[in-house]
Amino acid sequence: MSNEIRKDYILDRWVIIASERGKRPTDFSVRPSERSKTETCPFCPGNEKMTPPAFLLYIPSAKGVERDRDSNGERRSDWLVRGIPNLYPALRPREPRSLSADELHEREDGVGEHQVVIESPRHDEHLDRARVEQVRLVVQAYIDRLEALSKWKYVSIFRNHRKEAGASLSHAHSQIIATPIIPKKIANELTASKAYLQSKGSCPYCDILEKERDTDRFICENESFVTLAPWASVYPFEFWLLPKRHQSTMLKLKEGEKGDLARMLRTALGSLAKVLRDPPYTFGFHIAPSAREIEHFHWHLEVYPKLAIQAGFEDSTGIFINVTPPELAAESLRDGLK
Amino acid sequence: MSNEIRKDYILDRWVIIASERGKRPTDFSVRPSERSKTETCPFCPGNEKMTPPAFLLYIPSAKGVERDRDSNGERRSDWLVRGIPNLYPALRPREPRSLSADELHEREDGVGEHQVVIESPRHDEHLDRARVEQVRLVVQAYIDRLEALSKWKYVSIFRNHRKEAGASLSHAHSQIIATPIIPKKIANELTASKAYLQSKGSCPYCDILEKERDTDRFICENESFVTLAPWASVYPFEFWLLPKRHQSTMLKLKEGEKGDLARMLRTALGSLAKVLRDPPYTFGFHIAPSAREIEHFHWHLEVYPKLAIQAGFEDSTGIFINVTPPELAAESLRDGLK
Repeated sequence: MSNEIRKDYILDRWVIIASERGKRPTDFSVRPSERSKTETCPFCPGNEKMTPPAFLLYIPSAKGVERDRDSNGERRSDWLVRGIPNLYPALRPREPRSLSADELHEREDGVGEHQVVIESPRHDEHLDRARVEQVRLVVQAYIDRLEALSKWKYVSIFRNHRKEAGASLSHAHSQIIATPIIPKKIANELTASKAYLQSKGSCPYCDILEKERDTDRFICENESFVTLAPWASVYPFEFWLLPKRHQSTMLKLKEGEKGDLARMLRTALGSLAKVLRDPPYTFGFHIAPSAREIEHFHWHLEVYPKLAIQAGFEDSTGIFINVTPPELAAESLRDGLK
Repeated sequence: MSNEIRKDYILDRWVIIASERGKRPTDFSVRPSERSKTETCPFCPGNEKMTPPAFLLYIPSAKGVERDRDSNGERRSDWLVRGIPNLYPALRPREPRSLSADELHEREDGVGEHQVVIESPRHDEHLDRARVEQVRLVVQAYIDRLEALSKWKYVSIFRNHRKEAGASLSHAHSQIIATPIIPKKIANELTASKAYLQSKGSCPYCDILEKERDTDRFICENESFVTLAPWASVYPFEFWLLPKRHQSTMLKLKEGEKGDLARMLRTALGSLAKVLRDPPYTFGFHIAPSAREIEHFHWHLEVYPKLAIQAGFEDSTGIFINVTPPELAAESLRDGLK
């Protein structure tokens, strides 16, 4: 096999697929996770005073799970999921200042929200190894935050797994940043999917689901979700989770779909962890802005394992070099399901 | 200072400038470079047989420096600069195959060139600490390659410094990849600078040079070049080198300008190494494609220190978070000049 240059399904994003090197899982050396047991974890139960009060708590109750929040300076420690403000927020909620600007120096005030979802009271209950009912609560927390932050132009829900992928704490958690602008990557997807719909009469993501099913990039599915390695994967072992039902954001997920999403997350991330020995990765939900339903968009989750270093060529050209063709990645990730 | 969101001078690229955190050089922990002395370096003189024959050699001679190449299976070892094919090329020069494609699966054959410029016979003679006459030879080698590869749509000249920034070998070297497509980042700069010229009647980079001179983002200059920390720096301590004379590629650099570029590289990278204890960085030349002079473009070099990890938020939104405002970066880099 020779190298080829592939374009993303709909975006003007190109990647050199280095089939010649065709790196398999064993070609990547991933160091075992380091957990500094000696330091006190601010996200573990009992240490809630080390963090701001929670605005979201899922508490076990006789009826199942109840929603609560910290109040009166108290911190509850009997939670299953805990949502708190980030102690070092990239953006803060406040009245926006008006800032001077000119033609070459445009800017806006850095207003927004930066929050943390602590996914489990158990330090190491990461999504790849969590109990499905726990992942189901995390999914519910994402949807809760999406609703609560819908006044912002965009709500980015993402996860950094392991220090090498930007996680400053090893306790299982996700992050949420609400921004006063629509991020460019999302804007590009909105523009490209709209153009596709106008020219083809269909949603590009629905077409991707349909067409990739019978290729060697398909990884797995359940009743509501599909996992696949995308045609122009920019990262080795990159995969996407897509809902089968056309929907532009997660706000109207049905109860059954929430469970299916939890199971699919657990399954796909579980395979990744197994095949590559718990590698660093980031994931991010790509959703329609502002809780609006947008006909031509189809939300999905993109998972990027961090096994290679993005360097000068990628930095200065925007062309990625992926040393593991998605077909090879999908084969390994299918094997990891067994 | 509160955080703000800045837009690049001309591109639709936004960055959260985290002034609140305002990380100074001492806030970053950079580990000392590791050099594995035990392994034989394939780029050191005497080990030329470990690499392909050189297509470019600068050889000291009575008249100054002569140009040569390896031939007849021999490898010269008396070189000052050595240009060779990359042993693991991302793209190869050959007749392009015609590849099947469809609406959602576009691709091109992976043809092109991938070369290495070994910058010095001395293993550790990196640009930040090199003798200026040696940097001058490296600049000449870049221009030589640009000419030799001008049949390709684009020639990317870049450098990965230290392992953390993607350098697989620690011997001082740069890389060159010639591509059969115009990279998107360059295409975006071409489009934006053309639009700027049409609306303002001037080159945006000439205007940047003019306007930034009197700001606290200015770092230093010599007769032909300026170094500045750009308004919307995406990386902590990012800086750009720009030629004062309007020119879209480096092919017509005058002899004096080549020397000035060598001195400016040495000075600016020297300050970075001093201030941040030889941090990992990448740099890339942004030039007009295909050796053409393009009226609205103005070549420049962008240097990206790698001090923070790009993670899930950046990955999924394209919005960067920079914890060191460029004004603070420029102040430190100006101090480093002393």
